[in-house]
Amino acid sequence: MNTELKERLIAWRRDFHRHPEQGFLELRTASIVAGELDRLGYTLKTGLDVMVPEEMMGRHDREAIEKQVDWARQHDANLEFLERFREGYTGIVAEWDTGRPGPVTTFRVDMDALPIVESDDAGHFPQQQGFSSTVPGSMHACGHDAHTSIGLGLAVRISETAESFSGVIRILFQPAEEGTRGAKSMTAAGVVDDTDYFIASHVGTGVPHRHVVAAANGFMATTKLNVTFRGKASHAGAKPEDGNNALLAAANAALNLHAISRHSGGASRINVGELHAGSGRNIVADSAEMKIETRGETSEVNRYVREQAESVIAGAAAMYGVAYELDIVGEATSSKCSPELAEILVECATPSPFVEQIVFEDNTSAGSEDATYFMERVKGRGGLATYCIFGTNLAAGHHNEKFDIDEETMFAGVDVLYRVAQRLNALN
Amino acid sequence: MNTELKERLIAWRRDFHRHPEQGFLELRTASIVAGELDRLGYTLKTGLDVMVPEEMMGRHDREAIEKQVDWARQHDANLEFLERFREGYTGIVAEWDTGRPGPVTTFRVDMDALPIVESDDAGHFPQQQGFSSTVPGSMHACGHDAHTSIGLGLAVRISETAESFSGVIRILFQPAEEGTRGAKSMTAAGVVDDTDYFIASHVGTGVPHRHVVAAANGFMATTKLNVTFRGKASHAGAKPEDGNNALLAAANAALNLHAISRHSGGASRINVGELHAGSGRNIVADSAEMKIETRGETSEVNRYVREQAESVIAGAAAMYGVAYELDIVGEATSSKCSPELAEILVECATPSPFVEQIVFEDNTSAGSEDATYFMERVKGRGGLATYCIFGTNLAAGHHNEKFDIDEETMFAGVDVLYRVAQRLNALN
Amino acid sequence: MNTELKERLIAWRRDFHRHPEQGFLELRTASIVAGELDRLGYTLKTGLDVMVPEEMMGRHDREAIEKQVDWARQHDANLEFLERFREGYTGIVAEWDTGRPGPVTTFRVDMDALPIVESDDAGHFPQQQGFSSTVPGSMHACGHDAHTSIGLGLAVRISETAESFSGVIRILFQPAEEGTRGAKSMTAAGVVDDTDYFIASHVGTGVPHRHVVAAANGFMATTKLNVTFRGKASHAGAKPEDGNNALLAAANAALNLHAISRHSGGASRINVGELHAGSGRNIVADSAEMKIETRGETSEVNRYVREQAESVIAGAAAMYGVAYELDIVGEATSSKCSPELAEILVECATPSPFVEQIVFEDNTSAGSEDATYFMERVKGRGGLATYCIFGTNLAAGHHNEKFDIDEETMFAGVDVLYRVAQRLNALN
Amino acid sequence: MNTELKERLIAWRRDFHRHPEQGFLELRTASIVAGELDRLGYTLKTGLDVMVPEEMMGRHDREAIEKQVDWARQHDANLEFLERFREGYTGIVAEWDTGRPGPVTTFRVDMDALPIVESDDAGHFPQQQGFSSTVPGSMHACGHDAHTSIGLGLAVRISETAESFSGVIRILFQPAEEGTRGAKSMTAAGVVDDTDYFIASHVGTGVPHRHVVAAANGFMATTKLNVTFRGKASHAGAKPEDGNNALLAAANAALNLHAISRHSGGASRINVGELHAGSGRNIVADSAEMKIETRGETSEVNRYVREQAESVIAGAAAMYGVAYELDIVGEATSSKCSPELAEILVECATPSPFVEQIVFEDNTSAGSEDATYFMERVKGRGGLATYCIFGTNLAAGHHNEKFDIDEETMFAGVDVLYRVAQRLNALN
Repeated sequence: MNTELKERLIAWRRDFHRHPEQGFLELRTASIVAGELDRLGYTLKTGLDVMVPEEMMGRHDREAIEKQVDWARQHDANLEFLERFREGYTGIVAEWDTGRPGPVTTFRVDMDALPIVESDDAGHFPQQQGFSSTVPGSMHACGHDAHTSIGLGLAVRISETAESFSGVIRILFQPAEEGTRGAKSMTAAGVVDDTDYFIASHVGTGVPHRHVVAAANGFMATTKLNVTFRGKASHAGAKPEDGNNALLAAANAALNLHAISRHSGGASRINVGELHAGSGRNIVADSAEMKIETRGETSEVNRYVREQAESVIAGAAAMYGVAYELDIVGEATSSKCSPELAEILVECATPSPFVEQIVFEDNTSAGSEDATYFMERVKGRGGLATYCIFGTNLAAGHHNEKFDIDEETMFAGVDVLYRVAQRLNALN
Repeated sequence: MNTELKERLIAWRRDFHRHPEQGFLELRTASIVAGELDRLGYTLKTGLDVMVPEEMMGRHDREAIEKQVDWARQHDANLEFLERFREGYTGIVAEWDTGRPGPVTTFRVDMDALPIVESDDAGHFPQQQGFSSTVPGSMHACGHDAHTSIGLGLAVRISETAESFSGVIRILFQPAEEGTRGAKSMTAAGVVDDTDYFIASHVGTGVPHRHVVAAANGFMATTKLNVTFRGKASHAGAKPEDGNNALLAAANAALNLHAISRHSGGASRINVGELHAGSGRNIVADSAEMKIETRGETSEVNRYVREQAESVIAGAAAMYGVAYELDIVGEATSSKCSPELAEILVECATPSPFVEQIVFEDNTSAGSEDATYFMERVKGRGGLATYCIFGTNLAAGHHNEKFDIDEETMFAGVDVLYRVAQRLNALN
Repeated sequence: MNTELKERLIAWRRDFHRHPEQGFLELRTASIVAGELDRLGYTLKTGLDVMVPEEMMGRHDREAIEKQVDWARQHDANLEFLERFREGYTGIVAEWDTGRPGPVTTFRVDMDALPIVESDDAGHFPQQQGFSSTVPGSMHACGHDAHTSIGLGLAVRISETAESFSGVIRILFQPAEEGTRGAKSMTAAGVVDDTDYFIASHVGTGVPHRHVVAAANGFMATTKLNVTFRGKASHAGAKPEDGNNALLAAANAALNLHAISRHSGGASRINVGELHAGSGRNIVADSAEMKIETRGETSEVNRYVREQAESVIAGAAAMYGVAYELDIVGEATSSKCSPELAEILVECATPSPFVEQIVFEDNTSAGSEDATYFMERVKGRGGLATYCIFGTNLAAGHHNEKFDIDEETMFAGVDVLYRVAQRLNALN
Repeated sequence: MNTELKERLIAWRRDFHRHPEQGFLELRTASIVAGELDRLGYTLKTGLDVMVPEEMMGRHDREAIEKQVDWARQHDANLEFLERFREGYTGIVAEWDTGRPGPVTTFRVDMDALPIVESDDAGHFPQQQGFSSTVPGSMHACGHDAHTSIGLGLAVRISETAESFSGVIRILFQPAEEGTRGAKSMTAAGVVDDTDYFIASHVGTGVPHRHVVAAANGFMATTKLNVTFRGKASHAGAKPEDGNNALLAAANAALNLHAISRHSGGASRINVGELHAGSGRNIVADSAEMKIETRGETSEVNRYVREQAESVIAGAAAMYGVAYELDIVGEATSSKCSPELAEILVECATPSPFVEQIVFEDNTSAGSEDATYFMERVKGRGGLATYCIFGTNLAAGHHNEKFDIDEETMFAGVDVLYRVAQRLNALN
């Protein structure tokens, strides 16, 4: 990898880091990505061609999108391409069709940031180097700025050596991975339906610097739920019996949600992460909101927890005579990597100068990932899929205000994925 | 009052105390009472003439009744009258119709004992005097043995001086006051429908010895509920997800029942007094039973609590996917005494040699009483009703294993009620 | 009452209504009140002379106070007197000492507004007349603007007819009655220690227009509690066991707080009015806040509920291994009016042209009032105290965004209280 | 295996089945086992030589033991050996020391029955054949009758061919495996401290007939807890505030116990299997009892759940001002089988005429087993240990009232274990 590409990777990443955009609002990011890819000669599909609106979970309203368009316009978005995303369908599929017979290989990266206030500690590297977030309350604290850059770097390398490939190479730039909200809608649009090999990747996640995991199998199926209880307010001193207490319904639901039984089919999780109820000390609370997530080692286990959760919520509402709404705002399945493809990844990573150690698989249950939707679709149609991790030195854990990576990890990412493309789509 | 009657009162009370019978099982007691009343010349109505079966709450099954018949037969029941009660309808209405125009005055006493193991402490008076309970697990710990005796003593006095009365004097011997289970069925049978004056009474309840309360207004409306949850058992280690946890449904119901809102309309109570669930440590519990009571200073407040309780129970069952049954096994309304009748009672009690102080009314919320059904019916049809208390020295509180009264209080009871009859049904 | 005073009452009330200030921040209001009273010739005591800082509950921090000083300065505060209150001790005691022997009579009014957004409905009278709140999120929705005006009107009337009085007449302008936060600190400063007669008053509360209640006995003792639970955050998917769940501690506390037993000593209340917990769906919540209030028909009953609440909160924290802080941010006792003084009030209200009907007492349990601190102190030192209500037509209930009164009620207030002063402090 | 031994196995099993004895009460069973082993020439250690009383969990009181001694005496116990066990230390270690150098190999079986009423269904095989339980409320519903018989059958085979062995062969007959109560005390007595090879076994558990699992790795670490809450009774109508509600403490504990967080270190379980509280509907419950079990895929996970459980219980008691006692009445660790020994077992099982298929290992999490104490001790001191399963046709699941096995499975058990002994303790 030449110095120029290294410098461009760093420049991209720092630019994205300074301008973090949350899920389904990646307007500036997408415009820049699309511009670069177009310049490199890729065929682009965007917007409704690659996303099914009904399957987008936790979407923003019109006002939020327009506000983001304005902001992007004022912050060096690629204005030519910004238009393509102004309805908020921020997914991109970049395709390099060699015209020669060969497999369809799809790489996937994600672009969205998190609702976190970035640390202003002088020792925090992005602060030190002057590229920390300029958007209060938003931060790339999970490395997706690096992922997007890796995707671009990979695109550069492929376009530079286009004559050495056969088949089709595709790169997906996915919105809204945080909250597992975006992949379902791209999968539904069919963007991986003809894929023979699918490779998603992530930096960090506790894997040591210069190590690579070829098959990350620990992602849990998950559902993200928002619940609103609506009761009836009443003066707590004068007429307590006239109220229908939404706060107690929510408190009771929270407790019993956590008491949902374990499942013998594998690990499960339940978390009521937020509960906000009531509007005054002396008023019987008439509303309560909860943010919930369920997880399961398998999709079946997650479904069990989610169904139990629905019963608990309905029962708690009935207890206190309150109404409720339940919205699914995120979802991911579980998926196991194809060992055959992981094996290939091991082989390709071995000669990389940026890699010191390779682990075949890691089964530790941890977070969730909606790349699993792509993986399940590809495997279900006869293809192979894997999810690999590029280890890095983390300044602080993912989703922490001091999160930071070693930028060299992007070189490993581009180099290994490029070698995989060379192998899978070699010109015979 | 002559010495002979005093001795008979004590003898009756001790005999009943030695042979306690729980609600709707007062077979021996009723047979003896009926025998005495018949001997005195009263007209008796019993069984289905004075009780509506559908309104009997918390009735026993056939087997329990037959067992009690056998026991009564072996323990000096009045065999002639035992036959009348062998179906378990143990209420008695004794009437003395003077044939002369005049009001209908009804006195009411109760006969049932409690499921309590009487103390065998040497210092416990019934133990000392050899008349403590001979039935393990049953005890007259609320003074109904004295009430029944007072009813008989009053019957004696009236029959002895029958020529001095006009109108009709009636004495009700009610079964199953404990748990407020018996009065509703006698009221439904119409036994007080033509009553002009109704007087119920109780000994003790914290009123000092030789004091009388003319109008006890503190009885709360109440409902007694039994709830059974039925879920699905499962091995808690191997297949916890296959269970439907009745224990958790019940635990959750218990907690939320106690969290039912206070009511601005008056005092309320809720108590889950018993909860029994599960059959093994390593089994997801498939059944749970609860004994509940609600109370309200008014019938409306009690209804509010009971309706909320029903929602809580239904919601808790829904939460855990378990079925439930809810049975009402006791109920009483609230009722306020007629001040006019209480005034008369004050006047009549004043000259009694067994009374030192008279309180017009006591509004302290306390327990419940199903005599309120009779009171509400009488008042609803234009009559007057009151509930009076004859104070006594209590060895220990009501429902305590060392409960005991000063037997002299029975003399006060008979004397005051007799004076009331003389006043209300005086021969002009 | 002459037309000029009527117009001034209305002008004051509308000015205060346009400039609502919440408890302990009544800087503009107090400066104007003090200016008027000074002009009328009253001796003023303010600030630390009439408030003990340690007994102020739910005080604001320095920054909030300074911000309010700035705002007052920009909104026509009386700059001369504003200085006296700039530390946030906004209580005022205005005294008219006749120099002639006679009793000390103290009237008390309150000045603070509520954290409510006033309705902008065109039909809302203050909106219609152009005097609705100019401070977003603050509103006089409980009539304290009228109370302050009544206090000033009474001051005018007394000063105009000063020669007809004996003894000492005092008017207290109390801050922070909402949340029952201010009276305790004024009582502790001794401002009513030598008072012979104490009269507090309120407009509205459901009493019909032109009706007066001479003795409002239904105020419940109360305690306002803020609780913060502090646990430990953790990723709910990856390391749920590392968290200490503050949300569950709070949910469990909320439920069990509402399950605190009823008390046989009188009515009680408990309300968890607000619960806010957690910072993200996939994070084990590390903090939770609750706003709680307890009430009791007597101070003893309230103490019972508060002590149980403390056990519940401590136990809930222990269950989940979280720390907690519990702050008392408001408190009031219960207090019964002196019938002798209420009788005098009845006599004085009878001839008032603004009054049509007078009720001696009202015992309905309802809200709470910290005037009870003054009342208990006065009665405890041998004086008499009462709390009277001036009925009015309410546009909507107290604390509602459309709350409004009939301004004529201020005339009744000034007239009746002035007559009471004439009677109690008559020149013999 | 000759027909005679087959018949004896069946006779033993049916005799034990007819006379089930629960944990630490296996007096008749132990007396018969000891008699047989003594007759065969084994050296026996029993009672306090093989059990440490302090480590016995969930022991019975003296009265229960004496009653069992009497019963055993009347039901054909071996009176000569019964004396050895009359203190209730019912463990037996039978040793065959060849006197020749060689390894120490220990086999372990268990002897106790369950508190289950056996089905009297005519189609239930033990009923049909006339060997169903003669002890109401006790039943061999987990196959320990077969285990004991297998132990005896193995003893017979070894003694018959004693000359072909080297080293020491030991057979442990353990009491109280149900509730995981007995192994800890035998381990503490050092009975496996010098063991080179340790083999425990079980019949059934869902493994098909004629199949063998060489290494059952799914046993979870577990703790069995009994909790008693002691509060204060009070009349729920008259003085609810005087009570300290043990029922609510328990209900609240139950709910929050089930809400204990999942653990990322592996599967966990929690179950409150029984809850019994209160003594009357109208009494604030003064006592409550719960039977609880925790489990963990590893001992660390189980320890986490148990420690959280202790916090929950302590917090719930604090909430309601009740005292509590917490007793550990059973415990087992987790343990993984030694693959080397499992491999040997596979080899030995392969030629057995009673075995059709062999599975090397089964990792399904399921129940718990206290044989893990022996296994951990042996492995900790350098030996090898495994736990094998002999599949069978189950008439109904374990712990079901219709549980029954195919008796042929005992032949497989004896045959395979004998072949293992031949292999491990071969005479070179």
